[in-house]
Amino acid sequence: MRTSLADVNCSIARSMEVMGDAWTALILRDVSCGITRFEQLTEDLEVSRKTLAARLERLVSDGILERRQYSEHPPRHDYLLTDKGRDLQPVLLALMAWGDRWAAGPEGPPVRVYHEACGHHVRAVVACEHCGEPLTEADVVVEAGPGGRAGRGTRLLGPILVARARAREIAG
Amino acid sequence: MRTSLADVNCSIARSMEVMGDAWTALILRDVSCGITRFEQLTEDLEVSRKTLAARLERLVSDGILERRQYSEHPPRHDYLLTDKGRDLQPVLLALMAWGDRWAAGPEGPPVRVYHEACGHHVRAVVACEHCGEPLTEADVVVEAGPGGRAGRGTRLLGPILVARARAREIAG
Repeated sequence: MRTSLADVNCSIARSMEVMGDAWTALILRDVSCGITRFEQLTEDLEVSRKTLAARLERLVSDGILERRQYSEHPPRHDYLLTDKGRDLQPVLLALMAWGDRWAAGPEGPPVRVYHEACGHHVRAVVACEHCGEPLTEADVVVEAGPGGRAGRGTRLLGPILVARARAREIAG
Repeated sequence: MRTSLADVNCSIARSMEVMGDAWTALILRDVSCGITRFEQLTEDLEVSRKTLAARLERLVSDGILERRQYSEHPPRHDYLLTDKGRDLQPVLLALMAWGDRWAAGPEGPPVRVYHEACGHHVRAVVACEHCGEPLTEADVVVEAGPGGRAGRGTRLLGPILVARARAREIAG
Protein backbone atom coordinates (compact mmCIF):
# COMPACT_ATOMS: atom_id res chain seq x y z
CA MET A 1 0.00 0.00 0.00
CA ARG A 2 2.85 2.40 0.84
CA THR A 3 6.57 2.13 1.41
CA SER A 4 7.23 1.17 5.00
CA LEU A 5 9.54 3.54 6.81
CA ALA A 6 9.38 1.56 10.03
CA ASP A 7 13.08 0.72 9.78
CA VAL A 8 14.18 4.37 9.48
CA ASN A 9 15.78 5.30 12.80
CA CYS A 10 13.87 8.55 13.22
CA SER A 11 10.92 9.42 15.45
CA ILE A 12 9.43 11.63 12.75
CA ALA A 13 9.43 8.67 10.36
CA ARG A 14 7.89 6.45 13.03
CA SER A 15 5.18 8.98 13.83
CA MET A 16 4.42 9.53 10.17
CA GLU A 17 4.07 5.79 9.71
CA VAL A 18 0.99 6.23 11.88
CA MET A 19 -0.05 9.69 10.73
CA GLY A 20 1.21 9.58 7.17
CA ASP A 21 -2.18 9.78 5.66
CA ALA A 22 -4.74 12.52 5.75
CA TRP A 23 -7.63 10.09 6.32
CA THR A 24 -5.89 8.83 9.43
CA ALA A 25 -5.66 12.36 10.80
CA LEU A 26 -9.33 13.02 10.04
CA ILE A 27 -10.43 9.75 11.66
CA LEU A 28 -8.52 10.73 14.80
CA ARG A 29 -10.09 14.20 14.67
CA ASP A 30 -13.58 12.69 14.42
CA VAL A 31 -13.10 10.08 17.12
CA SER A 32 -11.88 12.75 19.54
CA CYS A 33 -15.08 14.72 18.79
CA GLY A 34 -17.36 11.77 19.55
CA ILE A 35 -17.82 10.40 16.03
CA THR A 36 -16.78 6.91 16.98
CA ARG A 37 -18.78 4.50 14.81
CA PHE A 38 -18.09 3.08 11.39
CA GLU A 39 -21.34 4.34 9.81
CA GLN A 40 -20.89 7.81 11.30
CA LEU A 41 -17.32 8.00 10.04
CA THR A 42 -18.31 7.02 6.48
CA GLU A 43 -21.07 9.64 6.55
CA ASP A 44 -18.87 12.41 7.91
CA LEU A 45 -15.80 11.74 5.80
CA GLU A 46 -17.47 10.50 2.60
CA VAL A 47 -14.70 7.94 2.41
CA SER A 48 -15.13 4.49 0.89
CA ARG A 49 -15.93 1.69 3.34
CA LYS A 50 -12.87 -0.16 2.13
CA THR A 51 -10.51 2.76 2.79
CA LEU A 52 -12.08 3.46 6.17
CA ALA A 53 -11.93 -0.20 7.24
CA ALA A 54 -8.24 -0.38 6.28
CA ARG A 55 -7.35 2.80 8.17
CA LEU A 56 -9.29 1.74 11.28
CA GLU A 57 -7.68 -1.69 11.27
CA ARG A 58 -4.26 -0.12 11.09
CA LEU A 59 -5.02 2.37 13.87
CA VAL A 60 -6.20 -0.51 16.08
CA SER A 61 -3.15 -2.65 15.30
CA ASP A 62 -0.88 0.37 15.96
CA GLY A 63 -2.50 0.75 19.38
CA ILE A 64 -3.95 4.21 18.65
CA LEU A 65 -7.61 3.18 18.73
CA GLU A 66 -9.41 0.36 20.50
CA ARG A 67 -12.66 -1.29 19.49
CA ARG A 68 -15.41 -1.55 22.08
CA GLN A 69 -18.56 -3.51 21.26
CA TYR A 70 -21.83 -1.65 21.82
CA SER A 71 -24.19 -4.10 20.09
CA GLU A 72 -24.07 -7.89 19.96
CA HIS A 73 -26.74 -8.49 17.27
CA PRO A 74 -25.57 -7.24 14.88
CA PRO A 75 -22.00 -6.89 16.20
CA ARG A 76 -21.14 -3.17 16.24
CA HIS A 77 -18.26 -1.26 17.75
CA ASP A 78 -17.18 2.14 18.92
CA TYR A 79 -13.63 3.15 18.09
CA LEU A 80 -12.06 4.91 21.04
CA LEU A 81 -8.71 6.57 21.62
CA THR A 82 -6.13 4.68 23.68
CA ASP A 83 -3.62 6.62 25.80
CA LYS A 84 -1.25 6.51 22.86
CA GLY A 85 -3.96 7.92 20.62
CA ARG A 86 -5.00 10.56 23.13
CA ASP A 87 -1.40 11.70 23.25
CA LEU A 88 -1.53 12.34 19.49
CA GLN A 89 -4.27 14.93 19.93
CA PRO A 90 -1.92 17.77 20.91
CA VAL A 91 0.09 17.01 17.76
CA LEU A 92 -3.13 17.36 15.74
CA LEU A 93 -3.77 20.69 17.49
CA ALA A 94 -0.29 21.88 16.47
CA LEU A 95 -0.97 20.74 12.92
CA MET A 96 -4.32 22.52 12.99
CA ALA A 97 -2.74 25.76 14.20
CA TRP A 98 -0.32 25.63 11.28
CA GLY A 99 -3.18 24.99 8.85
CA ASP A 100 -5.19 27.86 10.41
CA ARG A 101 -2.25 30.17 9.88
CA TRP A 102 -1.12 29.17 6.42
CA ALA A 103 -4.09 27.57 4.69
CA ALA A 104 -7.36 28.81 6.22
CA GLY A 105 -8.37 31.18 3.44
CA PRO A 106 -10.37 34.41 3.80
CA GLU A 107 -13.20 32.98 5.95
CA GLY A 108 -10.78 32.27 8.78
CA PRO A 109 -10.16 29.11 10.78
CA PRO A 110 -12.90 26.46 10.54
CA VAL A 111 -12.77 25.72 14.27
CA ARG A 112 -11.80 27.35 17.53
CA VAL A 113 -10.16 25.61 20.44
CA TYR A 114 -11.51 26.29 23.92
CA HIS A 115 -9.13 25.45 26.74
CA GLU A 116 -11.21 24.45 29.75
CA ALA A 117 -8.26 24.61 32.12
CA CYS A 118 -7.82 28.37 31.59
CA GLY A 119 -11.22 29.37 30.20
CA HIS A 120 -10.07 30.93 26.94
CA HIS A 121 -10.24 30.27 23.25
CA VAL A 122 -6.63 29.56 22.45
CA ARG A 123 -4.19 28.47 19.82
CA ALA A 124 -1.76 25.61 20.30
CA VAL A 125 1.92 26.51 20.32
CA VAL A 126 4.81 24.08 20.31
CA ALA A 127 6.83 25.12 23.33
CA CYS A 128 9.98 24.21 25.21
CA GLU A 129 9.17 21.98 28.18
CA HIS A 130 11.96 23.66 30.15
CA CYS A 131 11.48 27.41 29.64
CA GLY A 132 7.98 27.43 28.16
CA GLU A 133 8.94 29.64 25.22
CA PRO A 134 7.73 28.71 21.73
CA LEU A 135 10.26 26.59 19.88
CA THR A 136 11.30 27.95 16.51
CA GLU A 137 13.40 26.50 13.73
CA ALA A 138 16.05 29.16 14.41
CA ASP A 139 16.76 28.39 18.06
CA VAL A 140 16.72 24.62 18.04
CA VAL A 141 19.63 22.30 17.28
CA VAL A 142 18.88 18.66 16.62
CA GLU A 143 21.72 16.31 17.68
CA ALA A 144 22.33 12.58 17.92
CA GLY A 145 20.54 11.03 20.89
CA PRO A 146 21.01 7.75 22.77
CA GLY A 147 19.32 5.72 20.02
CA GLY A 148 21.07 7.50 17.16
CA ARG A 149 22.65 5.50 14.33
CA ALA A 150 23.15 6.01 10.61
CA GLY A 151 21.14 3.72 8.36
CA ARG A 152 18.33 3.81 5.89
CA GLY A 153 16.80 7.26 5.93
CA THR A 154 19.63 8.73 8.05
CA ARG A 155 22.65 7.81 5.93
CA LEU A 156 24.01 11.37 5.70
CA LEU A 157 22.04 12.86 8.56
CA GLY A 158 23.31 10.42 11.22
CA PRO A 159 26.97 11.49 11.05
CA ILE A 160 25.98 15.19 10.95
CA LEU A 161 23.97 14.78 14.15
CA VAL A 162 26.74 12.82 15.87
CA ALA A 163 29.26 15.56 14.97
CA ARG A 164 26.95 18.18 16.44
CA ALA A 165 26.57 16.25 19.69
CA ARG A 166 30.38 15.83 19.95
CA ALA A 167 30.99 19.51 19.23
CA ARG A 168 28.67 20.42 22.09
CA GLU A 169 30.38 17.95 24.46
CA ILE A 170 33.79 19.47 23.65
CA ALA A 171 32.47 23.02 23.98
CA GLY A 172 30.49 22.32 27.13
CA MET B 1 -1.55 10.03 -6.85
CA ARG B 2 -3.73 10.41 -3.76
CA THR B 3 -7.22 11.64 -2.96
CA SER B 4 -7.22 15.38 -2.64
CA LEU B 5 -8.66 16.61 0.62
CA ALA B 6 -8.10 20.25 -0.28
CA ASP B 7 -11.86 20.88 -0.32
CA VAL B 8 -12.41 19.55 3.21
CA ASN B 9 -13.05 22.56 5.43
CA CYS B 10 -10.62 21.55 8.15
CA SER B 11 -7.15 22.84 8.96
CA ILE B 12 -5.96 19.35 9.88
CA ALA B 13 -6.96 18.14 6.41
CA ARG B 14 -5.23 21.12 4.81
CA SER B 15 -2.05 20.58 6.80
CA MET B 16 -2.05 16.88 6.04
CA GLU B 17 -2.40 17.66 2.34
CA VAL B 18 1.12 19.03 2.72
CA MET B 19 2.40 16.62 5.36
CA GLY B 20 0.38 13.57 4.44
CA ASP B 21 3.35 11.56 3.43
CA ALA B 22 6.27 10.31 5.44
CA TRP B 23 8.79 11.21 2.71
CA THR B 24 7.61 14.80 2.87
CA ALA B 25 8.24 14.91 6.61
CA LEU B 26 11.71 13.41 6.17
CA ILE B 27 12.61 15.85 3.39
CA LEU B 28 11.63 18.73 5.67
CA ARG B 29 13.65 17.19 8.49
CA ASP B 30 16.71 16.90 6.25
CA VAL B 31 16.44 20.38 4.75
CA SER B 32 16.22 21.91 8.22
CA CYS B 33 19.45 20.04 9.12
CA GLY B 34 21.35 21.39 6.10
CA ILE B 35 20.80 18.50 3.68
CA THR B 36 19.45 20.74 0.94
CA ARG B 37 20.53 19.23 -2.39
CA PHE B 38 18.87 16.64 -4.57
CA GLU B 39 21.85 14.25 -4.61
CA GLN B 40 22.28 14.52 -0.84
CA LEU B 41 18.61 13.85 -0.25
CA THR B 42 18.63 10.74 -2.46
CA GLU B 43 21.69 9.47 -0.62
CA ASP B 44 20.33 10.15 2.84
CA LEU B 45 16.80 8.90 2.29
CA GLU B 46 17.49 6.09 -0.21
CA VAL B 47 14.38 7.22 -2.00
CA SER B 48 13.93 6.90 -5.76
CA ARG B 49 14.80 9.98 -7.80
CA LYS B 50 11.28 9.98 -9.18
CA THR B 51 9.63 9.98 -5.76
CA LEU B 52 12.00 12.62 -4.45
CA ALA B 53 11.50 14.88 -7.48
CA ALA B 54 7.71 14.64 -7.13
CA ARG B 55 7.78 15.46 -3.41
CA LEU B 56 10.17 18.39 -3.90
CA GLU B 57 8.08 19.80 -6.71
CA ARG B 58 5.00 19.63 -4.56
CA LEU B 59 6.73 21.25 -1.58
CA VAL B 60 7.90 24.09 -3.84
CA SER B 61 4.44 24.57 -5.38
CA ASP B 62 2.87 24.52 -1.90
CA GLY B 63 5.27 27.31 -0.86
CA ILE B 64 7.05 25.22 1.80
CA LEU B 65 10.42 25.08 0.05
CA GLU B 66 12.11 27.38 -2.42
CA ARG B 67 14.75 26.49 -4.98
CA ARG B 68 17.93 28.54 -5.05
CA GLN B 69 20.45 27.93 -7.83
CA TYR B 70 24.03 27.32 -6.67
CA SER B 71 25.53 26.18 -9.98
CA GLU B 72 24.77 27.33 -13.50
CA HIS B 73 26.67 24.64 -15.46
CA PRO B 74 25.21 22.20 -14.75
CA PRO B 75 22.12 23.86 -13.23
CA ARG B 76 21.88 22.76 -9.59
CA HIS B 77 19.73 23.97 -6.72
CA ASP B 78 19.51 24.10 -2.98
CA TYR B 79 16.08 23.55 -1.51
CA LEU B 80 15.50 25.93 1.37
CA LEU B 81 12.67 26.43 3.83
CA THR B 82 10.34 29.38 3.27
CA ASP B 83 8.70 31.10 6.26
CA LYS B 84 5.75 28.78 5.80
CA GLY B 85 8.09 25.79 5.82
CA ARG B 86 10.06 27.06 8.81
CA ASP B 87 6.80 27.36 10.70
CA LEU B 88 6.19 23.63 10.13
CA GLN B 89 9.34 22.74 12.06
CA PRO B 90 7.73 23.04 15.50
CA VAL B 91 4.98 20.69 14.28
CA LEU B 92 7.69 18.20 13.30
CA LEU B 93 9.22 18.60 16.78
CA ALA B 94 5.84 17.80 18.33
CA LEU B 95 5.51 14.78 16.05
CA MET B 96 9.04 13.73 16.98
CA ALA B 97 8.31 14.00 20.71
CA TRP B 98 5.31 11.70 20.24
CA GLY B 99 7.44 9.22 18.29
CA ASP B 100 10.16 9.38 20.96
CA ARG B 101 7.60 8.57 23.59
CA TRP B 102 5.57 5.88 21.88
CA ALA B 103 7.79 4.34 19.23
CA ALA B 104 11.47 4.81 20.09
CA GLY B 105 12.23 1.28 21.24
CA PRO B 106 14.73 0.16 23.88
CA GLU B 107 17.70 2.24 22.57
CA GLY B 108 15.87 5.47 23.31
CA PRO B 109 15.23 8.48 21.12
CA PRO B 110 17.40 8.75 17.99
CA VAL B 111 17.96 12.49 18.47
CA ARG B 112 18.03 15.10 21.17
CA VAL B 113 16.81 18.66 20.81
CA TYR B 114 18.99 21.44 22.19
CA HIS B 115 17.19 24.73 22.78
CA GLU B 116 19.71 27.52 22.29
CA ALA B 117 17.41 30.14 23.83
CA CYS B 118 17.45 28.43 27.24
CA GLY B 119 20.57 26.27 27.00
CA HIS B 120 18.99 22.90 27.72
CA HIS B 121 18.25 19.68 25.96
CA VAL B 122 14.47 19.73 25.88
CA ARG B 123 11.37 18.06 24.61
CA ALA B 124 8.69 19.85 22.63
CA VAL B 125 5.29 20.15 24.28
CA VAL B 126 2.12 21.42 22.68
CA ALA B 127 1.01 24.18 25.00
CA CYS B 128 -1.75 26.74 25.40
CA GLU B 129 -0.66 30.12 24.05
CA HIS B 130 -2.64 31.82 26.82
CA CYS B 131 -1.72 30.01 30.03
CA GLY B 132 1.32 28.06 28.83
CA GLU B 133 0.10 24.74 30.21
CA PRO B 134 0.36 21.63 28.03
CA LEU B 135 -2.82 21.03 26.07
CA THR B 136 -4.36 17.61 26.55
CA GLU B 137 -7.23 15.86 24.84
CA ALA B 138 -9.21 16.00 28.09
CA ASP B 139 -9.20 19.77 28.64
CA VAL B 140 -9.76 21.01 25.13
CA VAL B 141 -13.09 21.55 23.38
CA VAL B 142 -13.10 22.06 19.64
CA GLU B 143 -15.95 24.28 18.42
CA ALA B 144 -17.06 25.88 15.16
CA GLY B 145 -14.94 28.89 14.23
CA PRO B 146 -15.47 31.80 11.85
CA GLY B 147 -14.77 29.67 8.76
CA GLY B 148 -16.84 26.69 9.94
CA ARG B 149 -19.30 25.01 7.57
CA ALA B 150 -20.52 21.45 7.05
CA GLY B 151 -19.45 19.82 3.80
CA ARG B 152 -17.28 17.07 2.53
CA GLY B 153 -15.24 15.68 5.40
CA THR B 154 -17.26 17.58 8.02
CA ARG B 155 -20.80 16.41 7.20
CA LEU B 156 -21.60 15.22 10.74
CA LEU B 157 -18.84 17.05 12.54
CA GLY B 158 -19.83 20.53 11.35
CA PRO B 159 -23.23 20.60 13.12
CA ILE B 160 -21.72 19.09 16.29
CA LEU B 161 -19.14 21.87 16.44
CA VAL B 162 -21.74 24.58 15.75
CA ALA B 163 -23.92 23.22 18.58
CA ARG B 164 -20.96 23.34 20.93
CA ALA B 165 -20.17 26.94 20.03
CA ARG B 166 -23.86 27.93 20.57
CA ALA B 167 -24.00 26.11 23.91
CA ARG B 168 -20.98 28.09 25.10
CA GLU B 169 -22.51 31.39 23.91
CA ILE B 170 -25.71 30.65 25.83
CA ALA B 171 -23.79 29.53 28.92
CA GLY B 172 -21.28 32.35 28.79
